[in-house]
Amino acid sequence: MRKAICNGKIINEDEAVLPITKRAVQYSYSIYEALRITDSHIVHFEDHYERLKESADAIKLNLHYSYDEFKSALALLIEEENISNATVRILVVGGDVDKYYITYTDLLSYPESYYEDGVAAEIYFGERFLPTAKTSNLLMSYIALEEAKFKGAFESLLVNRNGVITEGTRSNFYAILDGKVYTAPDELVLGGITRISVIKAIEMLGLEIIYEPVRYDELKFYDSVFISSTSMAALPLNRVGEDTMNKKSWPLILKIRDLVRSWE
Amino acid sequence: MRKAICNGKIINEDEAVLPITKRAVQYSYSIYEALRITDSHIVHFEDHYERLKESADAIKLNLHYSYDEFKSALALLIEEENISNATVRILVVGGDVDKYYITYTDLLSYPESYYEDGVAAEIYFGERFLPTAKTSNLLMSYIALEEAKFKGAFESLLVNRNGVITEGTRSNFYAILDGKVYTAPDELVLGGITRISVIKAIEMLGLEIIYEPVRYDELKFYDSVFISSTSMAALPLNRVGEDTMNKKSWPLILKIRDLVRSWE
Repeated sequence: MRKAICNGKIINEDEAVLPITKRAVQYSYSIYEALRITDSHIVHFEDHYERLKESADAIKLNLHYSYDEFKSALALLIEEENISNATVRILVVGGDVDKYYITYTDLLSYPESYYEDGVAAEIYFGERFLPTAKTSNLLMSYIALEEAKFKGAFESLLVNRNGVITEGTRSNFYAILDGKVYTAPDELVLGGITRISVIKAIEMLGLEIIYEPVRYDELKFYDSVFISSTSMAALPLNRVGEDTMNKKSWPLILKIRDLVRSWE
Repeated sequence: MRKAICNGKIINEDEAVLPITKRAVQYSYSIYEALRITDSHIVHFEDHYERLKESADAIKLNLHYSYDEFKSALALLIEEENISNATVRILVVGGDVDKYYITYTDLLSYPESYYEDGVAAEIYFGERFLPTAKTSNLLMSYIALEEAKFKGAFESLLVNRNGVITEGTRSNFYAILDGKVYTAPDELVLGGITRISVIKAIEMLGLEIIYEPVRYDELKFYDSVFISSTSMAALPLNRVGEDTMNKKSWPLILKIRDLVRSWE
């Protein structure tokens, strides 16, 4: 059986459980991060720890574990399990539980064909509560993604009350037009760790980044659209809802992907 | 140690735990009910089962447990633990967990002074995702209630984008004016089991029930305001936010409370 970590100590994975009698569990009062480990190296750990702190602040969860605490715990798990490549999940439960857990799975990655052919996305009309925080309050994302999968799509894009696409259920969203890349402003979305790299890549490639969300009903006028996440890097969309997307800027998207991966 | 139920079988309460590696746990894909047991009798069980089914439908959770299944499980727990009075919680976790749990605590009740003096409420600007479903997606309720408690209040009332009060974090909301009782329409709120009794009591007392939500900025013009829940029955509010509430209709609210309790 795989091992996991609870508050710095190695446990068996089946001991990584939450008591349903606790208020923090009943109210989903918890935050998390999903990280990549490649060649036993934790990718962008500093950024993930910063975001964890931001999530904690947003929901007033008392995150009294330091950067070094998590760093040591991850190192311990990597050593104990002899991990080269994995997707790791840090979960911090607040309130009357007040514990953190680290679990891992095989490294989540997608076939090259996804990048060559693009993937499809459906849309879902909804707004996340506290969009800048990464919390376990994920019911809307679950439902949106299940509906999208049922329709054969890979992701679901959230459209807010103003008709603009903010983000995907597990990705950030971008639309390219005439050398400009449009994406929602920070306050409307989760501050993706990979988004930082994507924006850096966009600037390095001589494109302009514009923090304006894109209207759902105008998507087909863009040269191309894509999504980003820790697992996806940058992934082009071939369809959104009923609309087929243009492929004009796909080579650019793959360049962004390669740059993002090169900085890991 | 207290006992609990998992899928019809008695377990120890500390075995009522959820594995954090499961998607349904990570995404808070679960629904619940909180019931009263008084004199070993399950209060309004039929209504609670109906609402559980409605919650399941709303989030497309496959509730394949029958009325009789839950009824037998509750009877087993009551017998095993010799329960006279308790607050019981049924939790159904969907997706890749697909289990139900029943746990219990001492009967939640409030001192008589709460009904005589009223309690205070703060307000929180926010809207619940899928308001008619009782799910574990409760982060907003948790934060709203913690903030209210910090300010010495008992409940937090949710105000939507139109400036109207929809409901409390764990209660329905009503405002009385000139023999009329105003409450939000069904589609905006959780269909409280006690709300059914409250509305029956209102009609029995010769008052008119009007399904219109009340504006937060007009509260002080009402004769009185109150909240209802399984644990509270009907409970008057003496303050909402900055505003002191009128006490004109408090005797009426206590009559409603007594009628609600008499039907248990």
